[in-house]
Amino acid sequence: MTHDALGFREARGSSVGPVETRRVVLWGEDDPLVLETGSSLAPVEVAYETYGELNGDRSNAVVVCHALTGDAHAAGHHGDPDQPGWWDTMIGPGKPVDTDRYFVVCSNLLGGCNGTTGPSSTDPATGRPYGLRFPQFTVRDLVTVQRRLLAHLGVERLHGAIGGSLGGMQVLQWAIDHPGELAHAVLVCLSTRLSAQNIAFSSVARAAIMRDEHFAGGDYYATGLTPEVGLSVARMMAHITYVSEEALSLKFGRTRQNGGGPTFDPDFEVETYLDHQGAKFLERFDANSYLYLSRVMDYFDPFADEEAAVAALRGNPTRFLLVSFDTDWRFPTSHSQATAEVLRRAGCEVVQREVESPWGHDSFLLPVPEYLDLVDSFLGAPS
Amino acid sequence: MTHDALGFREARGSSVGPVETRRVVLWGEDDPLVLETGSSLAPVEVAYETYGELNGDRSNAVVVCHALTGDAHAAGHHGDPDQPGWWDTMIGPGKPVDTDRYFVVCSNLLGGCNGTTGPSSTDPATGRPYGLRFPQFTVRDLVTVQRRLLAHLGVERLHGAIGGSLGGMQVLQWAIDHPGELAHAVLVCLSTRLSAQNIAFSSVARAAIMRDEHFAGGDYYATGLTPEVGLSVARMMAHITYVSEEALSLKFGRTRQNGGGPTFDPDFEVETYLDHQGAKFLERFDANSYLYLSRVMDYFDPFADEEAAVAALRGNPTRFLLVSFDTDWRFPTSHSQATAEVLRRAGCEVVQREVESPWGHDSFLLPVPEYLDLVDSFLGAPS
Repeated sequence: MTHDALGFREARGSSVGPVETRRVVLWGEDDPLVLETGSSLAPVEVAYETYGELNGDRSNAVVVCHALTGDAHAAGHHGDPDQPGWWDTMIGPGKPVDTDRYFVVCSNLLGGCNGTTGPSSTDPATGRPYGLRFPQFTVRDLVTVQRRLLAHLGVERLHGAIGGSLGGMQVLQWAIDHPGELAHAVLVCLSTRLSAQNIAFSSVARAAIMRDEHFAGGDYYATGLTPEVGLSVARMMAHITYVSEEALSLKFGRTRQNGGGPTFDPDFEVETYLDHQGAKFLERFDANSYLYLSRVMDYFDPFADEEAAVAALRGNPTRFLLVSFDTDWRFPTSHSQATAEVLRRAGCEVVQREVESPWGHDSFLLPVPEYLDLVDSFLGAPS
Repeated sequence: MTHDALGFREARGSSVGPVETRRVVLWGEDDPLVLETGSSLAPVEVAYETYGELNGDRSNAVVVCHALTGDAHAAGHHGDPDQPGWWDTMIGPGKPVDTDRYFVVCSNLLGGCNGTTGPSSTDPATGRPYGLRFPQFTVRDLVTVQRRLLAHLGVERLHGAIGGSLGGMQVLQWAIDHPGELAHAVLVCLSTRLSAQNIAFSSVARAAIMRDEHFAGGDYYATGLTPEVGLSVARMMAHITYVSEEALSLKFGRTRQNGGGPTFDPDFEVETYLDHQGAKFLERFDANSYLYLSRVMDYFDPFADEEAAVAALRGNPTRFLLVSFDTDWRFPTSHSQATAEVLRRAGCEVVQREVESPWGHDSFLLPVPEYLDLVDSFLGAPS
């Protein structure tokens, strides 16, 4: 949902203005990235944007980690101020991730399709896109790439890292694996362990894609046909789960577009809306990236051995903020509570808040005042 | 979910034993069924089963109305006692719909694909299956067919009618339109008005089917290929919504089948389960029937004009039992409560109960003791 679709119009702070996406090769062919599974990958190029300035002692960096279908373009615009980045409500001068104070970095994830090496990139071994020959990877690998980018930018320690959903998974893994690197970790709509229902929805989305006639075992790039039916169905289904039932009722109810008899054409407004969401998604996302990044989430389970996790986290200096939304049924508050409990058992400093918002999981992208205030004051507090 | 999958093994009462499905042409070509939209349809053949005996004064009939993907085979078996009808827990000697007391009738719905005329039937005008040339119809039309079958069987007044989901919609419409015909109406997991979320899920299911390359505009019957990808994806998605998150967690959790690294093959048990559900469904259901019957539910809205509905129901002698389940998030208790409120405003006799059961919407097919007891005592009470 766009803000306008939801009736949000107010903005806080101003925009970072025009920005551009840069690219950097972080692992060359003679220096491959070794993944958690042991597979190697090279080259690894990363697309990223930065907003604000790095201060003299390089202590004001904040990393923004995107979710399943995000990209490096988190804030500002690429020429059209009416088409801001996906988290422009959160990032900018005077906004919670305040670009007057912080040097903000957002990169497209490994496995993505917007400038960072992923399954649609050319495999140097074959000269063709990887497709499903792209190696499987984990949240830990995503963090490895984030950290190498930071090193390239001359940053060794972060004021903070923030992300929702898959983004929050990266922030948590980072804090676990590299104690002392993150002063503030903001985990929005986090789950450390997707439920069977969550995996089920992702599994059906992948089935829709992989069984699409045009999927061609992942090698659809050269055919001129893409698994667009499967990908749009996957997106439409996922979209229902990102919005609360209440939000759909408030926004669409049972309003119809034609007053005639029953038809299979889109008639109820919610149908047209989903159709549009599915179609728009095809313009910006690669089906194989959807497979890889959704699968990364299924396997994420950093507290599988809870006692070991508590022991490893003991003494960890990162301060954690966990925010969830009362109507988010895909990544509900209970998951944030369970995470907070493990962190507290390890003696970590944790603030965990449920924010009221009717918009479900999508709330994390929306200008919900209490939520923005929480992030603002948490990041701005002296560390 | 089968009972075994859920760990239910106990049965109450015994089975009606071997049964067979019969067929009857209720509207011939010279006497078409005129639908609510004004369209005509002929011939209309109906597949049905009966259990128990009609008593001397023809006062002990109970009609069972099936839901979206049901059929006429509600109880007993067709040769293999281990493959009972879909509501064998509810219907049989000594069971709540007691075949020692009642003459029970269950027919395949108009638009279905198991013996009753539907989109896979031959259109006499073309000699080919109707496909999407089958007329749109409504819940009221489903009731018209149910009533004609009853007339054929010599029954004018019913001891009761019972149905879950789309089945309950028929029972309610029947009670509204034909006061005095139903002594007892049992409405399980009923909604008189699907929410935007509910329509959204059905809409995505239909998109998966209609955009499947093999759908061929609904004329896939002659091609040797069916929209099986779309239909199985639709079923898998719907299945997630028929089961509570709690049920999926209890049954599957995050249990994996291989201990290796990440893979796109089914790995989590819930994935294998959904795969199986999708595949099994292809053996028994027609994609066009899925389209028509799901669309009927979207449009059902008998209380759209609530004041008119209350006025029309005033003095209605039917006694209503509404049962819902606390973990059913697809057809939640709030919908039953809203229905009960309208019925009560009209002065109708209403019992409305929420039953605890972890199994979500699927509970209506399962031997949940409190639920079976409610139906038993309601149907058995003197009217």
